[in-house]
Amino acid sequence: MPIHTDKMFEAELKDLRERLLKLGGLVEQAIASSVRSLAERDTELAQRVCENDKRVNRLEVEIDELCLRLLALRQPAASDLRFITLALKVVTDLERIGDLAVNVAERAVQLNAMPQLKPYIDIPRMAEIAQAMLKEALDAFVAGDASRARGVLERDDEVDKLYHEIFRELVGFMVQDPQTTPRAMAVLFVAKHLERIADHATNVAEMVIFYVEGRDVRHPGSRRELAGA
Amino acid sequence: MPIHTDKMFEAELKDLRERLLKLGGLVEQAIASSVRSLAERDTELAQRVCENDKRVNRLEVEIDELCLRLLALRQPAASDLRFITLALKVVTDLERIGDLAVNVAERAVQLNAMPQLKPYIDIPRMAEIAQAMLKEALDAFVAGDASRARGVLERDDEVDKLYHEIFRELVGFMVQDPQTTPRAMAVLFVAKHLERIADHATNVAEMVIFYVEGRDVRHPGSRRELAGA
Repeated sequence: MPIHTDKMFEAELKDLRERLLKLGGLVEQAIASSVRSLAERDTELAQRVCENDKRVNRLEVEIDELCLRLLALRQPAASDLRFITLALKVVTDLERIGDLAVNVAERAVQLNAMPQLKPYIDIPRMAEIAQAMLKEALDAFVAGDASRARGVLERDDEVDKLYHEIFRELVGFMVQDPQTTPRAMAVLFVAKHLERIADHATNVAEMVIFYVEGRDVRHPGSRRELAGA
Repeated sequence: MPIHTDKMFEAELKDLRERLLKLGGLVEQAIASSVRSLAERDTELAQRVCENDKRVNRLEVEIDELCLRLLALRQPAASDLRFITLALKVVTDLERIGDLAVNVAERAVQLNAMPQLKPYIDIPRMAEIAQAMLKEALDAFVAGDASRARGVLERDDEVDKLYHEIFRELVGFMVQDPQTTPRAMAVLFVAKHLERIADHATNVAEMVIFYVEGRDVRHPGSRRELAGA
């Protein structure tokens, strides 16, 4: 590859990394705002989360395009190839996290119109961890740092634990006072969406570890050979 | 590209299509068996679903490898490139559907150990539709048929409708008799997993339409240019 093409390719890869981080930032913000719209009963903020999802979707399409262009025109080999194909997968997770934040915001609109069941404590905590997991997974991705990605996997257990605590607490409400059921169910779905967000972050982290180490941690026991490595 | 390489590439693409369909078949079977293990209270079958997920995971890894090898060694252009990058995304959805079927099977184990709340009618119906959606989306993918993929999008509404009916019915149970809450919640999570399976099938179908038509139906209003098209 001539030097000027090589430099162009470098610039394009940098552009790809930056767009991924930008998309990650938008999505992190969507998670935080959606839960804040619930905790602070701010329905306008919830509506802004839904509105802003268009930017997430646009950026996803742009990143997909950029990846395809790089694969078609630059014919990258080895580690660049793996980075780009992984970006194609990661961007899908990011977009779906954005959708889940919208789902949380929609539940917030619904819950904000009813008397509050109880102060939200564990839900913001779950969102905080899920958001931190996502940030860490993306930073690990662009830095190619498997040990940072590994930290994300551990935190998923914290989210699952919080989810089960919330679950038990809400079932307690419903059993004690069936009138609370619709509200408790709505809160439970918020918790479920946040758990799914953490799952997506975990998926990203697992893919990053594979990308960096060439080993497949997604499925212990299955070996994986690297194409071109 | 010399003719013999061209023929090899053709054979590899055929191999890729066949493996995708094989993975799709395994995952469809996992959906059907997981729900049957619930409806027929067959806990051994549920355990087999969990056991068989290893095959799903192995095949996912093999398909990922094959895609990377094709991108690295064959440097495909235009539509082959799009087919392979789409396969990379689709395989992730298939693997996650497999995980969701395992989640259903795990709930079945739990529910089969308790008295049955009521006969399952809508849950098998949901599973049947979700499974048919998945099959149709994959057939549309390998056939490059956008109109078949479009049919999948319509069916997602049926699944959502059934989900909301199940939701209402289960909330009714919980409100009338709080003792039913743990069982009703477990059934509700089964329904939620099936709804997510249908979502994954819908995601696959949307990506197929984009792949075939070069238009992005995932996000109406956003335009998308095709790399190399």
